[in-house]
Amino acid sequence: MEANDRVRVRRHPERGDYSAETIHQILDEAYYCHVGFASRGQSVVLPTTHARVGDVLYLHGAAASAMLNAASDAPICLTATILDGLVLARSVYHHSMNYRSVVVFGVAREVTDETEKRMALEALVEHVVPGRSKDARPPTGTELASTRVLRLAIGESSAKIRTGPPKDSEADHALDVWAGVVPLHLETSAPTPDPEIRPGIPVPDYLRGLGSARRNG
Amino acid sequence: MEANDRVRVRRHPERGDYSAETIHQILDEAYYCHVGFASRGQSVVLPTTHARVGDVLYLHGAAASAMLNAASDAPICLTATILDGLVLARSVYHHSMNYRSVVVFGVAREVTDETEKRMALEALVEHVVPGRSKDARPPTGTELASTRVLRLAIGESSAKIRTGPPKDSEADHALDVWAGVVPLHLETSAPTPDPEIRPGIPVPDYLRGLGSARRNG
Repeated sequence: MEANDRVRVRRHPERGDYSAETIHQILDEAYYCHVGFASRGQSVVLPTTHARVGDVLYLHGAAASAMLNAASDAPICLTATILDGLVLARSVYHHSMNYRSVVVFGVAREVTDETEKRMALEALVEHVVPGRSKDARPPTGTELASTRVLRLAIGESSAKIRTGPPKDSEADHALDVWAGVVPLHLETSAPTPDPEIRPGIPVPDYLRGLGSARRNG
Repeated sequence: MEANDRVRVRRHPERGDYSAETIHQILDEAYYCHVGFASRGQSVVLPTTHARVGDVLYLHGAAASAMLNAASDAPICLTATILDGLVLARSVYHHSMNYRSVVVFGVAREVTDETEKRMALEALVEHVVPGRSKDARPPTGTELASTRVLRLAIGESSAKIRTGPPKDSEADHALDVWAGVVPLHLETSAPTPDPEIRPGIPVPDYLRGLGSARRNG
């Protein structure tokens, strides 16, 4: 990945990671991201889902989406963050969080090729629930036409990671204050069937492996 | 809250909520947010923690932080998102997520008054772990000087919420595909003491109530 001035981690540079492996892993684990784009001279930040295929990220939404319209053919910033824990230091000053985040800068382009568009929509479903795209009904031509897909190359990007215990000063170690980390995990609970589900349709096997074993954000 | 054109929810307007109560509840539950600001003509989106005191949000960081420098006295967008579930429809097209998000637009101003600054730093710790600020050592003068605090009024803001089952078309109800929601919760696991913790310091009572009972993001 390119570690140029714009993506270089300046605050706590020891937390920066520019390897494609780390960046891809965080993007794959995060269920969603936040996309920032300019609209009438102002940054706008909205949550959305993404999927990675190789060195490319795909975004999607309604063809009429104001966000996709503003984000298309324009410089955007895509940020995905996974919260791993609360870091409780003896001092208020050294409180922190353990997290893994990725920032990607680039220009998102609309995907107009139908084959790539279908592949991207499949990847967006697979990103959230692996195995699902083989089960759910694929998009019709009308659905495809009313969906816009954007592609963003993961070129200019960086990861920032904090792990481990708090970093109090030596003097503060004498304080009578508990210090440590409260780990956080995104957990799934039992799937809730649609109230209108047809009788006799079992919960699919591919829903069993979901949850914190595989991902945390 | 002001529901002007910039914050009005245009895509799925039925998901929009402009009440202060809803907006405050989401901001209070979310452990962190993403802040978008302009830097050299480009949107930059970074994760950070926040705290709400009445109608004001506080952000903080190192005095030398490039993010706080760029976000100070400039229009920013602060977005907090809580993921509540994966929505599996019978069609790829109707897949979605259940979530609650808040977008706040405004100009963040540096807090220079020492009393307000100390109150904000206390609120930032209390936001994450209620009760903690009474226990941890308060900032020294040097620590206070090396920390920058910004205040952002929650004026121009909106919430967007999706809940409930998937919304497949009537025709798709006949498909032999499971549909429903996989609920997600951010759970805490047992606190991990700092390896250098002094013997005999117990895990504080205020860490017991943390987790999904109170919050999900």
